Amino acid sequence: MVIMKEFDVLVVGGSATGVVAGIAARKHHERAQIGLIRREKQVPIPCGLPYIFGTIGAPEKNLIPDELLSKNGIELIVDEVASVDRNHKTVNTLGSGTIGYKRLILGTGSSPIVPRIPGVDLENVFTAKKDIEYLRHLSRALETARSVVVIGGGFVGVEFADEFRKRGLDVTVVEMLPHCLQVVYEEEFCLLAAQKLSERGVKVRTNSRVEGILGDAKVERVRLSTGEELAADLVFVGIGVIPDTKLAEEAGLKIGPQRAVWVDEYMRTSDETIFAAGDCAEKTSFFTKKPIALRLASIAAREARIAGANLFELKSINEGVIGAFSTVIGNLALCAVGLTEKAARDAMHEPVIGVAAAPDKHPSSMPGASELRVKLVFDKATGEMLGGQIYGGLTVGEVGNVLAAMIQKRMTVDEVVTLQMGTHPMLTCSPITYQIVRAAEDAQVKHLRG
Amino acid sequence: MVIMKEFDVLVVGGSATGVVAGIAARKHHERAQIGLIRREKQVPIPCGLPYIFGTIGAPEKNLIPDELLSKNGIELIVDEVASVDRNHKTVNTLGSGTIGYKRLILGTGSSPIVPRIPGVDLENVFTAKKDIEYLRHLSRALETARSVVVIGGGFVGVEFADEFRKRGLDVTVVEMLPHCLQVVYEEEFCLLAAQKLSERGVKVRTNSRVEGILGDAKVERVRLSTGEELAADLVFVGIGVIPDTKLAEEAGLKIGPQRAVWVDEYMRTSDETIFAAGDCAEKTSFFTKKPIALRLASIAAREARIAGANLFELKSINEGVIGAFSTVIGNLALCAVGLTEKAARDAMHEPVIGVAAAPDKHPSSMPGASELRVKLVFDKATGEMLGGQIYGGLTVGEVGNVLAAMIQKRMTVDEVVTLQMGTHPMLTCSPITYQIVRAAEDAQVKHLRG
Repeated sequence: MVIMKEFDVLVVGGSATGVVAGIAARKHHERAQIGLIRREKQVPIPCGLPYIFGTIGAPEKNLIPDELLSKNGIELIVDEVASVDRNHKTVNTLGSGTIGYKRLILGTGSSPIVPRIPGVDLENVFTAKKDIEYLRHLSRALETARSVVVIGGGFVGVEFADEFRKRGLDVTVVEMLPHCLQVVYEEEFCLLAAQKLSERGVKVRTNSRVEGILGDAKVERVRLSTGEELAADLVFVGIGVIPDTKLAEEAGLKIGPQRAVWVDEYMRTSDETIFAAGDCAEKTSFFTKKPIALRLASIAAREARIAGANLFELKSINEGVIGAFSTVIGNLALCAVGLTEKAARDAMHEPVIGVAAAPDKHPSSMPGASELRVKLVFDKATGEMLGGQIYGGLTVGEVGNVLAAMIQKRMTVDEVVTLQMGTHPMLTCSPITYQIVRAAEDAQVKHLRG
Repeated sequence: MVIMKEFDVLVVGGSATGVVAGIAARKHHERAQIGLIRREKQVPIPCGLPYIFGTIGAPEKNLIPDELLSKNGIELIVDEVASVDRNHKTVNTLGSGTIGYKRLILGTGSSPIVPRIPGVDLENVFTAKKDIEYLRHLSRALETARSVVVIGGGFVGVEFADEFRKRGLDVTVVEMLPHCLQVVYEEEFCLLAAQKLSERGVKVRTNSRVEGILGDAKVERVRLSTGEELAADLVFVGIGVIPDTKLAEEAGLKIGPQRAVWVDEYMRTSDETIFAAGDCAEKTSFFTKKPIALRLASIAAREARIAGANLFELKSINEGVIGAFSTVIGNLALCAVGLTEKAARDAMHEPVIGVAAAPDKHPSSMPGASELRVKLVFDKATGEMLGGQIYGGLTVGEVGNVLAAMIQKRMTVDEVVTLQMGTHPMLTCSPITYQIVRAAEDAQVKHLRG
């Protein structure tokens, strides 16, 4: 066996996990030889995929820049890893021969689920595949499309639907559950999202299933379980992802209960020299410490930072995933952090709820002000914040990050009430009505008065 | 002595402190009789004052709504308190006779400093007085003004200058120090602010003093200490505020080292039945536990919440002020939270600095994206975050609140690196380059490598 190259740290995968793991490895090991192998010549930004088709305009405008690797001294190898030889600490590639590693980081990600429904192989059926060529193909297909059916009303489905609509297409979302976005948002926020989708002209069929995709070579119609048929010349499927674990499984690494690569709290796989992070790795809930299926680029990046810190010495612990989901429909932004009220109950907490709404600038006559509403969930026993939901304008994502920091540090309702926030007429709501604090006060009252 | 009314809780002052104290008292005491006495018929939102003159358009559009009182069952009395009789637990008012209290909360605020320079009494010399009639007068004066000199380049001066400029006026800011905004921002952020002011057409004279305001009845010119004269038909003075402590002093309450009403960590004055909060009350630093002169509506609101919680039972502690200052110049927003690098050194910390910059949406081709830069200050000994400075677009205020929550919970550099943030293409930067996390990583590297 000829070893062509030898790295201290070798990363497999070039999306959020791989790039961040490489950078983190460099940060902790200034002089290490670090390599990154990925299949793709160019890597799309995963969360940016929907925006290619409405707002941004082209797949080429949504790339993870390779300078992130070069300026951190990470050698890029565009190739495919065929197998991992754990005994020799090498990987076998299709084009570059055998490459040695001291530490291996798997960031192989996930692939969109393709449902087993008749007609799913027809031309013009697409998923959110993270592949530039594929996305170009979708882009071209959209040029002649007039009506699109989106299967799945989660984040991916809703965001693609909203972007397709921006091109003037006739768009229908088909969702199995009673509401779109129901898996992570409280019902009242789902209703708001539904209203906004309707205002935007996106049709939504909830409590509905697609039973078949019909057409002669190319998509023509979609049949629902009710028997009803919807005209469609393009179908987009956004019903979730499955972890890419083939390489890990074939190398004999342990697979976890969510069918992802098992990892410990240091992001080590069952082989202590191999780490896994991001969509391909198992997740544990911050709250319950039980397995949970949350796959987001923000979580991937965080896990990659932890893996990168622990390669040769254990320095950083993953205390489990909180989960912060933001989405935008038209000019409405929604964010969910941590547990919903229902999820809190399911995890055996007695939730105490607080809500508050106020303009996101002050006074409300300030141009561009829109209402920002916060719902917070606290644990009755400890007073700790368990979760929050927000809707409003463009500041919603960062307001969600205020909550994320609070939850991570297990801030109690009393501490949130005396938050040392800053306010400004053009940037936030007024200090009198600052929503996070007022929602905590609302919860505190309910708490005080039993 | 005839007592006309008797309240369980009586609040003096109707701005941020008074309103929030009243609401907090109601929250903790469902059935209490709560009254609020204020001099003003209508109360302007203090932080909104500059925006009356450019963005909002009229003083009437910048009012604290009285419904905040009525819907919380707080009785509003528009009157002036002449004195406090601590023995009888009453206040004497000019129009409503003697009013009794069990607990009194002083939220008497502050007044703009009027410097003792010749000509300061001339017509068309204004300050940021929180008085609707006065603001209307300024509004009318601006209608015929063409050139304005703003004395003082702190927040108030800079924000008024920028708003005056939006009306097309010729505006010059005169600042004693080498930079505008220098008291709370790091030099590099001051330089950015200076550049933006210049782009906006606001002239700035730093290292300069106004020695006299000249004119015949009405302002005509301003003379600098260099002897140079600037034409001006209106002068706006924004050089700080002094606490309004007359009532407290005359009642024999202890006055603190910053010439404000002395309070303990429960917001009690030297009389345990009288509380003070906001601009009229002494402040203690969160970091040094020493007196500090920070006067912001956000701090006032927080202290009022603490006072309201402690009226009849001690429930909430003020661990001192962190301070979060945001400002906006044109489309540039700046925020400073906690200690600057220099302030950290002055407080005997060895600061470790981290910086990061990235677009505030992702990819950077996303419409409306602008650069957001974060500088973080950590304590070398403990790793705890001491402060941060941010510039960017409209999300800067809430990004500052992420830092505020972190500092309040004494989050360490390692914890910030593994922040459980959420990201979204239209709302935040990418998870790979999320600025707070990357700035913490930058600090961590410097820390690791000594």
